[in-house]
Amino acid sequence: MSRMTMLRLGAALCAVLLGGAAGAAAGIDRVEPPHWWVGMKSDKLQLMVHGDAIAGFSPRLASPGLAGVRLAGVRRVANRNYVFLDLVVAPRTRPGSVAIEFRRGLEVRRVDYQLQARAPGSARRASFGNADAILNLMPDRFANGDPANDNQPGFPDPANRADIDAGRHGGDIAGIVGKLDYIAAMGYTAIWPTPLTESRQDKYSYHGYAATDTYRIDPRYGSNEDYRRMVALARSKGVGVLQDIVLNHIGSNHWWMKDLPAPDWLGYGNRFVPTAHARTTASDPYAAQADRKNYVEGWFGSDMPDLNQKHPLLATYLIQNTLWWVEYAGLYGIRVDTFGYSDHAFLSAWSARVREEFPTLNIVGEEWSMNPLVVAYWLDGKRNPNGYRTSMPSMMDYPLNDTLRRALVAEDSLHSGLSHLYERLNDDMAYPDASKLVVFEGNHDIPRLYSILGEDLDLYKMAIAYLLTTRGVPQLYYGTELLMTSPTVRADGPTRQDFPGGWQGDRVDAVSGAGLDAKQKQAQAYVRKLLNWRKAQALVHSGKLMHFAPEDGTYVYFRYAGSGQGAKRLMVAINKNRKPVALDTARFAEILPRGASGTDVASGETYDLARTLAMPARSVLVLEVDR
Amino acid sequence: MSRMTMLRLGAALCAVLLGGAAGAAAGIDRVEPPHWWVGMKSDKLQLMVHGDAIAGFSPRLASPGLAGVRLAGVRRVANRNYVFLDLVVAPRTRPGSVAIEFRRGLEVRRVDYQLQARAPGSARRASFGNADAILNLMPDRFANGDPANDNQPGFPDPANRADIDAGRHGGDIAGIVGKLDYIAAMGYTAIWPTPLTESRQDKYSYHGYAATDTYRIDPRYGSNEDYRRMVALARSKGVGVLQDIVLNHIGSNHWWMKDLPAPDWLGYGNRFVPTAHARTTASDPYAAQADRKNYVEGWFGSDMPDLNQKHPLLATYLIQNTLWWVEYAGLYGIRVDTFGYSDHAFLSAWSARVREEFPTLNIVGEEWSMNPLVVAYWLDGKRNPNGYRTSMPSMMDYPLNDTLRRALVAEDSLHSGLSHLYERLNDDMAYPDASKLVVFEGNHDIPRLYSILGEDLDLYKMAIAYLLTTRGVPQLYYGTELLMTSPTVRADGPTRQDFPGGWQGDRVDAVSGAGLDAKQKQAQAYVRKLLNWRKAQALVHSGKLMHFAPEDGTYVYFRYAGSGQGAKRLMVAINKNRKPVALDTARFAEILPRGASGTDVASGETYDLARTLAMPARSVLVLEVDR
Repeated sequence: MSRMTMLRLGAALCAVLLGGAAGAAAGIDRVEPPHWWVGMKSDKLQLMVHGDAIAGFSPRLASPGLAGVRLAGVRRVANRNYVFLDLVVAPRTRPGSVAIEFRRGLEVRRVDYQLQARAPGSARRASFGNADAILNLMPDRFANGDPANDNQPGFPDPANRADIDAGRHGGDIAGIVGKLDYIAAMGYTAIWPTPLTESRQDKYSYHGYAATDTYRIDPRYGSNEDYRRMVALARSKGVGVLQDIVLNHIGSNHWWMKDLPAPDWLGYGNRFVPTAHARTTASDPYAAQADRKNYVEGWFGSDMPDLNQKHPLLATYLIQNTLWWVEYAGLYGIRVDTFGYSDHAFLSAWSARVREEFPTLNIVGEEWSMNPLVVAYWLDGKRNPNGYRTSMPSMMDYPLNDTLRRALVAEDSLHSGLSHLYERLNDDMAYPDASKLVVFEGNHDIPRLYSILGEDLDLYKMAIAYLLTTRGVPQLYYGTELLMTSPTVRADGPTRQDFPGGWQGDRVDAVSGAGLDAKQKQAQAYVRKLLNWRKAQALVHSGKLMHFAPEDGTYVYFRYAGSGQGAKRLMVAINKNRKPVALDTARFAEILPRGASGTDVASGETYDLARTLAMPARSVLVLEVDR
Repeated sequence: MSRMTMLRLGAALCAVLLGGAAGAAAGIDRVEPPHWWVGMKSDKLQLMVHGDAIAGFSPRLASPGLAGVRLAGVRRVANRNYVFLDLVVAPRTRPGSVAIEFRRGLEVRRVDYQLQARAPGSARRASFGNADAILNLMPDRFANGDPANDNQPGFPDPANRADIDAGRHGGDIAGIVGKLDYIAAMGYTAIWPTPLTESRQDKYSYHGYAATDTYRIDPRYGSNEDYRRMVALARSKGVGVLQDIVLNHIGSNHWWMKDLPAPDWLGYGNRFVPTAHARTTASDPYAAQADRKNYVEGWFGSDMPDLNQKHPLLATYLIQNTLWWVEYAGLYGIRVDTFGYSDHAFLSAWSARVREEFPTLNIVGEEWSMNPLVVAYWLDGKRNPNGYRTSMPSMMDYPLNDTLRRALVAEDSLHSGLSHLYERLNDDMAYPDASKLVVFEGNHDIPRLYSILGEDLDLYKMAIAYLLTTRGVPQLYYGTELLMTSPTVRADGPTRQDFPGGWQGDRVDAVSGAGLDAKQKQAQAYVRKLLNWRKAQALVHSGKLMHFAPEDGTYVYFRYAGSGQGAKRLMVAINKNRKPVALDTARFAEILPRGASGTDVASGETYDLARTLAMPARSVLVLEVDR
């Protein structure tokens, strides 16, 4: 057995090869999930076992097996190197290992499969919600804490920091760990790193969305245990970790690709046909079946084979893989990549099962559409005309992201500029509960906010203030606090530049402030101020929202709760004009108490609101109303 | 009593002034509705009676009154010159007149109020639907059949054809009558003239949306009887008439304005405050009450006072006014102007009552929004989160109009060009029944189609073919068939140019074809061909729709019904490329039979569909699939 194969099996799996077998070809090189737990809600567990001609062996649980575990079924597929075992783990089974023997005549292969104890409170864990602020970061581009792991034997696509577009830059888990204090001090309470799982791809491996082993952290980031320790350490600093889960596709160098389990393991019968990205086919009442099929079975590219989750064994594999990471790593939440591209019945089953095991776990899906109807389609509680349902608690609010960006740069008129933003919130009527959406200013896939806003610090502050005071769970992109820039049309490399100070010798350092210019320091301080303030703002987390139709380049909204003496109000006012304006506060009489004043969160200044609110040119005020 | 006052009372109302009174001041100058009918579904009728100090009189039905009619209530308002009588007309009352006496001491004023027989079948009349094609025309700009009526004593704003933007041009009912054969021959089965009711405004009276008497046809168009005859004559030629009803506002010279019934007859306590047009306030879960109020109570302008339909007497007045025109004129349908701007509870009541009296009458409302959620909000059967409901069967499909125009001019890419159109139809999921929407290529308020399409005849044919084969009830704008142009940003005057041949001496004549250039003739023939073909196409009227995601500047959809041997299919294919393309028909296998061919409706040419569809550059084919 090669060193690599041993690595693959991981610390949790012990495969003992008996019967004179020698080398991987004669044994078992994979059992997945590599271990499991006792005390899960569902007593079912399905193991994928991979080994040369393993389907020709008869599996059984060797006595003395672990009390409470039984083998309920054996499933074989076209490829004889796979066998799937349906285990039943009775509710009160104690942790331990169960010996599984595979016999063919005198030949025996044996696996000692571990069933571990769950972490206390795991099922009903704390998870991200409206009190959180999430930082999206790209590990390869965030910080290189351990230059020694940048290249690994057997992994193509060597580190090359000079290659902005396609190269690996060396960022890793140690880098994230090193920045946790900064992240926590900035006021983030959660991070969403793009995928850390193994991506042994020939090129473009840095982005991580082409996994080659979904049970393993890429060694260029660190080990599974490094990841688990990072999650625990972050949590101890008040920062939860969301794992980026890719259900739709794998990388073309995934180990399955050399030995596919079945002729229908991938979309289009394992044959590369590109997806046309016709995402509306999911809900479109008129869509052709051919397009519906293409949307879910078409591949992102020949380097990203599309998984066919219609295959029940693959479906179970993916579901268990998600459950495994949540339990193993102690996740605070999940972000699901390219959500609607997976088989839709599978998505219902996947989300239902994850929520069944972890009822409090929050999950946010990516649906890259500017149409609220398309995004809302996937949400738990949405009544779709075609009857489709999921158990998804949240989706990324792409429509509001797009609108916020357009609203700030467009000229203001009856239906333009700030009115875009005002009118967009009307569409919250299409969501079962819009307050559960994740609102964001940017991510690794879209041009950077500051560039879209024409590098205008005033508009930038409006965007940040809006994001952190509107409904939903806010999410920001790494470097936004430093005014990082990019082209204004999509260009992945430049949108994923290295975080300043993440590499030894960096001239600019976000943490120490070295090399930051005055505007960057201002921006960083602004984000830090608002993020930390927001942590304790119940009004922002769960208050009602009332907004007033924009007038003459100004827009005012309130977050509020209670009534009478107990009423609490936050007033947010935006003035896009290049001149000061005096807003007549009589217009807000239904929500603003007579003779009130307000204290601006960012500056600490108090504003009289009795008759007018005197707003500086190009400004946003976040006012805690004093009475 | 002046001649004008007599005219106002109209042929159907006979007011006899007794008690020595002389002149209108001493009598009754208005009773509205001016007459009513026996055999309506509701037995209630409320008369608005206007006369000097009339509130001080005691009304009663003089004996011998009409058997079955009784006076159930008398309502007075702040203005003593009005009184409202609640009559009950028992179900089997026979037609005739009922004498109403108003007494104050010895003084008696008397009205003989007519209750007429209804037209046979009136309640369950034929009305417009998916088999129809509607022509929107602006009477003042369509055809001047009677130059003698262009100016009328007592009416300001004299005819001035040289004034494109604001002037009256002299078009009238006689003009429409003269063009009915042309309209019918073109293939239209319905017309929607912009309002014909009296608009005695000082300027801009030509558009008719500022009525000064909602019970009277403007004499510059003709008389009420002329209108009724036109409707009947059109019907005999297979052309129904939709009346354009304005519930939201009146003209500033409306007779009420000199003697307002109540201090809350108009929005904002009869005080001019402009509307900010914040239409999303209707459904926006976060809208401030102040904005909601402004949307429905704000005025379009000081020349268009906004009616406050919260006033129950005004609400009943408006409801009865609509019922009156349907029954009186024999309408084929209703188009409602500025729908959401009226009080929302009133709109529910109005639509419910109109549909109660005329269950088969179709009604289409105007909601000038590109957002399907905003349009869908008003439709019968829509489940709104705030519980709001109406009985509206149809709305104008502004979102699809906007999308069609953008789709044809935008470059084709993943989410642009024809994909706009494809993706838009997904939003039909937001409508209770999208097939009931009125789809249109243009109207009097938006730039002309041909100009928006860059005066490109190929794109124009695609637009027409799409409009006449997609779901919904199609509506075109007068002159579209002649490629009439306008600026590409809103400019009312130039978008409402005179219809060629509508005026004596016109060099160009749509009917004879004189002066039309080759492209205009081609366009006219194309529209005529498709409209007439469409009349008998059950597939287009009510067939299902299936479309395929656009590819490389092409877009294909089918209308279909039945299955197996009885299956019928219409295939519409659009090629925006400037070169011929061969579409692989295997992609359509789920709907297109093997070895089929199709006959193009416009050219009569047959296309082999067995392997590929050979499409000319920049073309649209409407193919009747042969098997």
